[in-house]
Amino acid sequence: LFADIKAAAARLEGVANRTPVMSSRTFAGRIGAAAVYFKCENFQRGGAFKFRGAYNHIASLSPQERANGVVAASSGNHAQGVALAARLLGIPALIIMPSDAPTAKLAATRVYGAEVSQYDRLKDRPELLLAQFASERGMHPVPAFDDPLIMAGQGTAALELVRETGPLHLIVVPTGGGGLLSGTATAVRSLSPRARIFGVEPQAGNDWVQSLAAGERVLIDPPDTIADGARTRQPGALPFTVVRELVDGVVTVSDTEIVEALRFLTLRMKLVVEPTGALAAAALLAGRLGDLAGLRVGAIISGGNIDPDALAGMLAP
Amino acid sequence: LFADIKAAAARLEGVANRTPVMSSRTFAGRIGAAAVYFKCENFQRGGAFKFRGAYNHIASLSPQERANGVVAASSGNHAQGVALAARLLGIPALIIMPSDAPTAKLAATRVYGAEVSQYDRLKDRPELLLAQFASERGMHPVPAFDDPLIMAGQGTAALELVRETGPLHLIVVPTGGGGLLSGTATAVRSLSPRARIFGVEPQAGNDWVQSLAAGERVLIDPPDTIADGARTRQPGALPFTVVRELVDGVVTVSDTEIVEALRFLTLRMKLVVEPTGALAAAALLAGRLGDLAGLRVGAIISGGNIDPDALAGMLAP
Repeated sequence: LFADIKAAAARLEGVANRTPVMSSRTFAGRIGAAAVYFKCENFQRGGAFKFRGAYNHIASLSPQERANGVVAASSGNHAQGVALAARLLGIPALIIMPSDAPTAKLAATRVYGAEVSQYDRLKDRPELLLAQFASERGMHPVPAFDDPLIMAGQGTAALELVRETGPLHLIVVPTGGGGLLSGTATAVRSLSPRARIFGVEPQAGNDWVQSLAAGERVLIDPPDTIADGARTRQPGALPFTVVRELVDGVVTVSDTEIVEALRFLTLRMKLVVEPTGALAAAALLAGRLGDLAGLRVGAIISGGNIDPDALAGMLAP
Repeated sequence: LFADIKAAAARLEGVANRTPVMSSRTFAGRIGAAAVYFKCENFQRGGAFKFRGAYNHIASLSPQERANGVVAASSGNHAQGVALAARLLGIPALIIMPSDAPTAKLAATRVYGAEVSQYDRLKDRPELLLAQFASERGMHPVPAFDDPLIMAGQGTAALELVRETGPLHLIVVPTGGGGLLSGTATAVRSLSPRARIFGVEPQAGNDWVQSLAAGERVLIDPPDTIADGARTRQPGALPFTVVRELVDGVVTVSDTEIVEALRFLTLRMKLVVEPTGALAAAALLAGRLGDLAGLRVGAIISGGNIDPDALAGMLAP
């Protein structure tokens, strides 16, 4: 609900960064739009929008729930979001990560003071470990996307965007589990009711496209794509309900198109983004969203946590 | 004069980007400061602060001076600033560039509609070519830094910064010819009179340090440094007068320190900067500015025009 997003915004006031909205005349000219406004969540605390939902969820816990700490399973931005939010609220956090996660991500999570528990990706199932820690140690599990407080928190990015730009014709959002897309849709339907809303996912991981076509949540094989934040195998249950009702569609882009967009954002707009963060820009540049002539377009850059080697490889292939 | 900077700000209103001010708790914590505010001129039009001075200068020309167009000698950001400003004002521009300038910079200048005249760096002297075009074709030469209108234009970045942050204890500025440093000093002395003001230049090109010590402008050999925007061999005459009077000092950093700062800005703050743009951050990280405990610090990131190969090389050495 829109009221939940406004409540989340109040909780995040003075805690989350109010990230800048950037535009590029060259980008708008290339796709024929009147203007393109990028909401830059790569500048969010922890380097991605994930902090918004994690903080909103954890700040809403009762003193009793807080006492035993929180636990989350993630090798990516959700891990850092939960670890940082928990530290700011003075709550212990345990993050369950695969043992082959990049050293940089392990280190980044530990920097925020979280305990890290590693598991074997081939043998263990993180959702079972999560349930086990929750029951054995009484820790409160923080879901990555399938939760009203997480979805409301993620919706605050679009709330800030549309309040700054005014009504938009089109808004384009990267989507993995659907927390950001569903939160955005709820915010935009209230603030800019006539805007068309589209999600973008990698071609190799098109669980949303398949699910929307089937009318039910489809489980796909683990996808192989550089967009590591959108490697989810199935839409979240709650996000799916919201997206079906409020979103106009989900489109896909190839890894090559992601790299091209990432290079434009880096070299022309001077923004460091991760591949998942470039999904919306990629869909716009690749012409996946139809005729954009004269339109005012909003796009969310979801995050900027990228390995130096990976970024170097995309810049000098 | 401060009045000139306010007049420049009025001319640039709605034309130049009002660039964001970014801060990083991690950066401030690492140097022990209370807060560090980065004025991000890498997000300026043309990718650097240079557009401010160029536009302020060219917009002040008489109709007669405009008629024959403008000419500038530069292989860097001044070229793009002049080309873009001239295009916006509907004035022909000729840019004199060395024939071995990177193809990307030639192309970027031509994108803005400027004519490019190439010269042989070993045989020709660009200042003579500039004078020749000015006399033969009646073109108005746009200086890179040694000019009151250029200096006033560059001062608008610090004007915006201090108006946004309020008074600062210290402000740190990259310096080449001194246009940005002198303009900044003039703005800051009026807006935040007790702030200490420091310039930063590369160790290999320490013409400012030598000149301030000698009490006169020293000419050094062509410096070898990755900070290509600060390879000037001698301070500008007018900037030198202003800097001697208003600035507390100029410090130097090594290329290694520049790369370290650039990596922090890229990977932690998600900002694409060029080596010269990282000078102020490098001086702060390297401890060149003494005890910063409890201080509110401003720093200017001068630009973000970097070759993809060069950036890749610094990220994955």
